[in-house]
Amino acid sequence: MNNEKVITTSDLISDDPSYLETIFSIANGHFGIRASNPIVSSESAGTIVNGFYEMSEINYGEKAYGYAENNQTIVNLPDVRAIKIFDSESNEFSQSELKSETLDMNTGLLTSVYKLLNPNNQAIELKLQSVLQQTDNHVLGLRYTIKSIDYTGRIKITKHFGINNDTAETDDPRKSRSLHTLTYDRNKIDDSCEVLEVKTKKSQLVIDLAICSQHALEENLELNQPVDFDIIALVGDINTKLQMIKPSFSEILADSKSFWHEFWQNSEVGIDGDESLNQAIHYNLFQLTSSTGRDGKTNIPAKGLSGTGYEGHYFWDTEMYMSPFFAYTNPQIARELILYRYSILNESKKRARELGVDNGALFAWRTINGEEASAYYPAGTAQYHIDADISYAIDRYYKVTLDKDFMKKYGLEIVLETARFWRSFGSFNNKGFCFFDVTGPDEYTAIVNNNYYTNRMAKFNMEFAVKLIDEFPEQSKRLGVTEEEYDSLKDAAEKVYLPYSEAEQINQQDDSAFDKPIWPFEDTPKSNYPLLLHYHPLKIYRYQVNKQADTLLADFLFDDISQNQLKREYDYYEKITTHDSSLSRSIFSALAARIGLKEKSYDYFMDTVKTDLIDLQKNTADGLHVANLGGSWLTIVMGFGCIEIKDSLLVINNNLPNKWKKLSIRIKFQGRLIKITYLHAKTVIDILDGEPLNVIVDGIKKNIK
Amino acid sequence: MNNEKVITTSDLISDDPSYLETIFSIANGHFGIRASNPIVSSESAGTIVNGFYEMSEINYGEKAYGYAENNQTIVNLPDVRAIKIFDSESNEFSQSELKSETLDMNTGLLTSVYKLLNPNNQAIELKLQSVLQQTDNHVLGLRYTIKSIDYTGRIKITKHFGINNDTAETDDPRKSRSLHTLTYDRNKIDDSCEVLEVKTKKSQLVIDLAICSQHALEENLELNQPVDFDIIALVGDINTKLQMIKPSFSEILADSKSFWHEFWQNSEVGIDGDESLNQAIHYNLFQLTSSTGRDGKTNIPAKGLSGTGYEGHYFWDTEMYMSPFFAYTNPQIARELILYRYSILNESKKRARELGVDNGALFAWRTINGEEASAYYPAGTAQYHIDADISYAIDRYYKVTLDKDFMKKYGLEIVLETARFWRSFGSFNNKGFCFFDVTGPDEYTAIVNNNYYTNRMAKFNMEFAVKLIDEFPEQSKRLGVTEEEYDSLKDAAEKVYLPYSEAEQINQQDDSAFDKPIWPFEDTPKSNYPLLLHYHPLKIYRYQVNKQADTLLADFLFDDISQNQLKREYDYYEKITTHDSSLSRSIFSALAARIGLKEKSYDYFMDTVKTDLIDLQKNTADGLHVANLGGSWLTIVMGFGCIEIKDSLLVINNNLPNKWKKLSIRIKFQGRLIKITYLHAKTVIDILDGEPLNVIVDGIKKNIK
Repeated sequence: MNNEKVITTSDLISDDPSYLETIFSIANGHFGIRASNPIVSSESAGTIVNGFYEMSEINYGEKAYGYAENNQTIVNLPDVRAIKIFDSESNEFSQSELKSETLDMNTGLLTSVYKLLNPNNQAIELKLQSVLQQTDNHVLGLRYTIKSIDYTGRIKITKHFGINNDTAETDDPRKSRSLHTLTYDRNKIDDSCEVLEVKTKKSQLVIDLAICSQHALEENLELNQPVDFDIIALVGDINTKLQMIKPSFSEILADSKSFWHEFWQNSEVGIDGDESLNQAIHYNLFQLTSSTGRDGKTNIPAKGLSGTGYEGHYFWDTEMYMSPFFAYTNPQIARELILYRYSILNESKKRARELGVDNGALFAWRTINGEEASAYYPAGTAQYHIDADISYAIDRYYKVTLDKDFMKKYGLEIVLETARFWRSFGSFNNKGFCFFDVTGPDEYTAIVNNNYYTNRMAKFNMEFAVKLIDEFPEQSKRLGVTEEEYDSLKDAAEKVYLPYSEAEQINQQDDSAFDKPIWPFEDTPKSNYPLLLHYHPLKIYRYQVNKQADTLLADFLFDDISQNQLKREYDYYEKITTHDSSLSRSIFSALAARIGLKEKSYDYFMDTVKTDLIDLQKNTADGLHVANLGGSWLTIVMGFGCIEIKDSLLVINNNLPNKWKKLSIRIKFQGRLIKITYLHAKTVIDILDGEPLNVIVDGIKKNIK
Repeated sequence: MNNEKVITTSDLISDDPSYLETIFSIANGHFGIRASNPIVSSESAGTIVNGFYEMSEINYGEKAYGYAENNQTIVNLPDVRAIKIFDSESNEFSQSELKSETLDMNTGLLTSVYKLLNPNNQAIELKLQSVLQQTDNHVLGLRYTIKSIDYTGRIKITKHFGINNDTAETDDPRKSRSLHTLTYDRNKIDDSCEVLEVKTKKSQLVIDLAICSQHALEENLELNQPVDFDIIALVGDINTKLQMIKPSFSEILADSKSFWHEFWQNSEVGIDGDESLNQAIHYNLFQLTSSTGRDGKTNIPAKGLSGTGYEGHYFWDTEMYMSPFFAYTNPQIARELILYRYSILNESKKRARELGVDNGALFAWRTINGEEASAYYPAGTAQYHIDADISYAIDRYYKVTLDKDFMKKYGLEIVLETARFWRSFGSFNNKGFCFFDVTGPDEYTAIVNNNYYTNRMAKFNMEFAVKLIDEFPEQSKRLGVTEEEYDSLKDAAEKVYLPYSEAEQINQQDDSAFDKPIWPFEDTPKSNYPLLLHYHPLKIYRYQVNKQADTLLADFLFDDISQNQLKREYDYYEKITTHDSSLSRSIFSALAARIGLKEKSYDYFMDTVKTDLIDLQKNTADGLHVANLGGSWLTIVMGFGCIEIKDSLLVINNNLPNKWKKLSIRIKFQGRLIKITYLHAKTVIDILDGEPLNVIVDGIKKNIK
């Protein structure tokens, strides 16, 4: 067994049950289960289905035109792992203590061992193996293995849904936000199978769950030797009748093994010199992939499928921090993530109209169903950059895959509609083409003019549209593009104003950024971070202080300034950045690697790669920081490994940290599977599958066979 | 009788009952009653006590540190005019039709005549005379005169409190915002008197109301000739036991007459050439004065005491639009209005700390109890200028009264604490002393840097503090002023940055104002005004478009730019102003008068002087636009009459509109009562009471005896 792909309780720093529930949560893109105790239900125990949400009206102290109307809140559905075990005198083994938990990332198998006690303090051991089917991702296999410790004799097992009664429908309006509007309809098909239909009241969604045994849901067994009790749990598609398939536990396990085997073949990352780091990276990639919708209708919730934090919403995190991994290792998933955006294009056009922009589409800052759900527009809707972020992800996918068919059918239209938005939203003045009252990625600086990141991304978005119109003239015409519009997009793209400080010789975060005083860091006690929890937004906004990489993120994405300027910018912005967002350090790390700050780069990386495993932010209990999982891959591959695509050519620079002996990564590129090995002395490229390829490695053009 | 001081239903354009309830509402600074039908209660019928409010938690879609915590909502207390009348067979006269309503502003007497019907369609007439005591303003006199129309015989009258049951306490949290948290405790003292104690749940306020008859609250009368039934209603002070005084109706009327006589002596405004205009101005001054708290603990609610709109909150409207009238005609009231601000100075210091400003005080943008109640900070708390607005009102009061004693005890401290706020809030950069992320009076442009109005007012505020420290060194020292602080305030005041556009040669609304495109007025249908109801704030903010005078308001207040620049500014800003705020036109009118645009000035004035009487904004039913009432006086006196104080000297310029033959106004100035008469040929100044005075009239210095 490869220890770098196994996580057990003994590897972890805490035995807090909620933290462990998150860490050992497993998922398959469609649904996830938290690793809660099946005997003693916890509050957060349950099943989280990607995209299954309830709505409730957003209350505003003072409402205005065009504000987001409804909350969309992902639902914590009943726990399908809950079970009851009784002794021969019908006393329940109601005490349960976790002994160990092991997640094998080679196979996807989660093994949890508990010691159970009946009221007479007689003990048995319960081993629960859980594994998700990955190809048809509606199935969970559960094997409960029970053996005697000091109790022997008959036991009775009953399998049921662990329903949290607090979620059932109630008329009490005080409870509406915390989702007490579900109706449950149980339907026992026969002794071996029960179906539970769950309906939401306001969003009008329905889903079926099922638990099925190969024998019966209630069984009496003699405990003279370890006994197995297998359950198959099914989770249907939203608003779709459940398909009653019943693969065996071993069939499900085989499916999972094969999926993860293939996965590691395509996306292996290996570091020689730090086993625990290796383990952490594998964990990140494993959980990131588990969290990600693959059906073109769903996306990646902010906490994956491991918790209901951030209400299960999809953010720009997908395009900027997570889809790069998929584009380069499993482009089919990157494609599905874009298809989700395509599926909400109509809502996004409507949203642009609500914002008073006559043309194009504006994607919601946070959403499940495509409608804006952000209740604070200065750090929500005003982050218009999400439009360009999505276009950037399309460009990346296209560069890696050359998938023209996809571009014609879907990609072109999204890029065009977002470019149209920028063209209609911006305006010319004597500085150029400008964007007013926007918020960039740095939420500590809101509602500003000409945010560098936003403007740079908008420029890219319109340039990309122009390029695609050139490439797909027929499809573009069908989408209503005229010569006039083409010229207009091209002209605006060329003239986008990009703020630059002559005094500092760097790109300036926005028109007024450097006018403001620098945040009084020396007067700010450590306990006052993150700032947003300790200062009024008006205080934070009126200083130079960044929550996360903003202008630097543009530098990271476009690599379009000199090394010297990059160094100056890095220096400047690092001094005013708090990294109060978990999305910050991965970008600082990658950029530090690119400008040769090896120690710093490594330190930032180490701060982020284990964010969840070491519970860095003290809230892993609420769910994984999935964007950060993707961010660690980004740092390795785009920072240390420094892979970029320039003029359709793969460009690789070796920024191997001093502390590592070797780094090897695998990526897919234009139909090939490539392994890149970074050593201190050299960079080795192997094409594992596919045609020869021209690359530029450490500045030298090579043909790799 | 002077018709210019009488309003009757026949003068009005509508017979909508809610509109008439507002128009004929009467008040005495402490409480007000709407002119509702005493027989058939309307929803908004009731008694509004200045400063008597209930609290409820403000709900935010997304809350952040330092947000206002609680709503403060003025309570509509029981109607004390409600009455029941029965015929000899105990059938109620339950149908009631208003025949006429007359408000005599010479005396304060409101006379309402109704025709009542019993179920047999027999009719009687009810005349209700209502008059408020003004000196001890806890008393309302009511005389019900009943006479036969075609019903004769015995009648029974019963007097009761008109309690709106919807306001009683309930556990239903859905009702909390609309105030269903009151408890009522009735206490019948004897046959002639009933006291009602009303308590609020969350704000923990108590008030006593009483209704007393000279005989009994229930009486049987023979209707062979008109019969009178007198009731005295008492409204106690908040959290204070009611004083059971019982003046007679005629005593109350005499008190009211004497009050209003004195009032007109001091504040008469007369226009020769337009009687209905004269009537409108008198109405405005009468209602403004009725609406205004005079006890140093209350202020002027946004709808006066005529309605519960804007939750009964006090805004900057007081200092900028209403207190000028009082400063120049009844300085004692202006003083009480400042004392209210003094009474909430501690809350304001606390608020400054919540905003992260280490020194000084920040007054709440909207409040009753001194705590911020604005639930949208970009158009609330960010209007820091309220601090300087209050200091400006203190300066005005001081210039008119030379009341050194008041300045030592109260004025100095407020000016100092607000100046300290500015000093601590602002910061130096190479432009000067700057203020970031502020909102000026124009709420269509929010969260900007160096709003001209804000900066100009802050400069004034700090300069004024420096001046007062010079004048009151001892008191200043006691308030902690050091030489260092003095220098620091002086330095910052001198260096305040004031944005100026070289291209336009005018003061620029804020750093980025002129970068933005001009609002597409030609594409905006009339039905889309006011813009805030039809466009997302982000749309409005990203254009040059003003809700109201902003930079121009500073010009109006300081008169510190050349006539030519003022003309340019007026031209520029007029083109981008929608006047969606009722506070806008009065300033445009006054400035137009000052720059000689007589027609325009007159037109703006005519649009505002009758705002409520002609129901211009279609919402007079919700209450009077009291700031606008004050605004019309401002236009006349500071625009047409162009009175200013410069270097402690009264400066008068005659801008009499062409359509008027004559304008005469009365003001108090430094202990004198002065009458100024504007004719087309000359300006005549009479000192009605007091010492001779040097003035500058139409550019010429004169000594008036």
